[in-house]
Amino acid sequence: MGIGPGSADYLTPAARAAILASEVVLGYRTYLHLIEPLLAGKQVISSSMMQEVERVQTALQLAEQGAEVALVSGGDPGIYAMAGLVYEIAAERDSPADIAIVAGVAALNSCAERLGAPLMHDFAAISLSDLLTPWAVIERRLEAAAVADFVIVLYNPKSKKRAHHLPRALEIIGSHRNPETPVGMVTAATRDGERTLIAPLREFDPALVDMQTTVIVGNSHTFVWRGKMITPRGYRTKYRLD
Amino acid sequence: MGIGPGSADYLTPAARAAILASEVVLGYRTYLHLIEPLLAGKQVISSSMMQEVERVQTALQLAEQGAEVALVSGGDPGIYAMAGLVYEIAAERDSPADIAIVAGVAALNSCAERLGAPLMHDFAAISLSDLLTPWAVIERRLEAAAVADFVIVLYNPKSKKRAHHLPRALEIIGSHRNPETPVGMVTAATRDGERTLIAPLREFDPALVDMQTTVIVGNSHTFVWRGKMITPRGYRTKYRLD
Repeated sequence: MGIGPGSADYLTPAARAAILASEVVLGYRTYLHLIEPLLAGKQVISSSMMQEVERVQTALQLAEQGAEVALVSGGDPGIYAMAGLVYEIAAERDSPADIAIVAGVAALNSCAERLGAPLMHDFAAISLSDLLTPWAVIERRLEAAAVADFVIVLYNPKSKKRAHHLPRALEIIGSHRNPETPVGMVTAATRDGERTLIAPLREFDPALVDMQTTVIVGNSHTFVWRGKMITPRGYRTKYRLD
Repeated sequence: MGIGPGSADYLTPAARAAILASEVVLGYRTYLHLIEPLLAGKQVISSSMMQEVERVQTALQLAEQGAEVALVSGGDPGIYAMAGLVYEIAAERDSPADIAIVAGVAALNSCAERLGAPLMHDFAAISLSDLLTPWAVIERRLEAAAVADFVIVLYNPKSKKRAHHLPRALEIIGSHRNPETPVGMVTAATRDGERTLIAPLREFDPALVDMQTTVIVGNSHTFVWRGKMITPRGYRTKYRLD
């Protein structure tokens, strides 16, 4: 289940109910910390960041033994998160566990909210992490999305080991887009230390991005008004707006 | 603000609080019906589907006069919905109204949830409505997304006037993707009459799609297990999953 971007204001009643109904709650410790008030009386299994496979295996084993298990994910488990790994491992084991996903407000939803309205037209979400995807595939997708004028949401724009991914991605996009194209970033949306920045592509500083950041690059029509990043839907071509 | 896919279980506390704090609530009548219990004692202005421009102008006028106004959108107002039009019209008027977007669980989040885990890897969202976008641009984006092996989320797959958009879109995608590629559709997610279907691209029947449907086409790795559509993230290339 997804707990949304972090603030309890974005935790859906469905996710809250699923957590409260569970006997065991598993998750990355940062996410568990965000829902601490809901964990009283439950078995809690927290883990560090890179232990996704073990976490899912444990969750499935417990569920197969009859326990009500909540596996907690930040954002929406269905977008670049734990839902896929749960099904992948369940399929591998042909697990009889009864699995349900509970969607949440994902990073792309909350970052768009903070920036204004950047996702009003066709967009592509691309992860810059090459841990599980060859970098050549990522470059090919960046190129395709840039050429076809998609708004582009960049997930995992920075990792501990690789600082050059984001500059390279912006270079690829920039070779097909005006240097004045607005680029927005949101770090720690709805959480302590939230930071938001919008800058033209030519000036955007990748050094400001960290592992909690999502970056959105506008399309050829995106503009900035009073600090908000806005991709028009196209009403102006059909209607008078004033 | 976004009320999510429809069920109150997906209405965030942030959206609920914003509705309760408002004096005037505006929206398409189907959405207002879904949040009826929250509307007691408020001025409610409901409208039919094609009156978005007038609805936003009214909302801004009321807000400029000092009213607390909630403009309600299904799903997430930030994804192909009302947030952009609000900012477009506000910019046109250089409106002094204090505007805040409240993100919600969008159609792509709730449809992915219902189908399993299709959005675990890079994806493109493309609207098939050519009311405000030239069809040639839509075809170019379909082609680009298909060639670069994005999972593809199709918004507005059917309209009253045009039945041929979805078959044509699937034909474009199919010219770059295996005919066995899973395609999922969800109609009326979380609402009365919800329907879910997963079929191979070669068999998928566009006639089953209506105006409340979202369609997701898998990438070259997407598979089906026990009726769920799963796009692997790539863990299997690095880890043993059994």
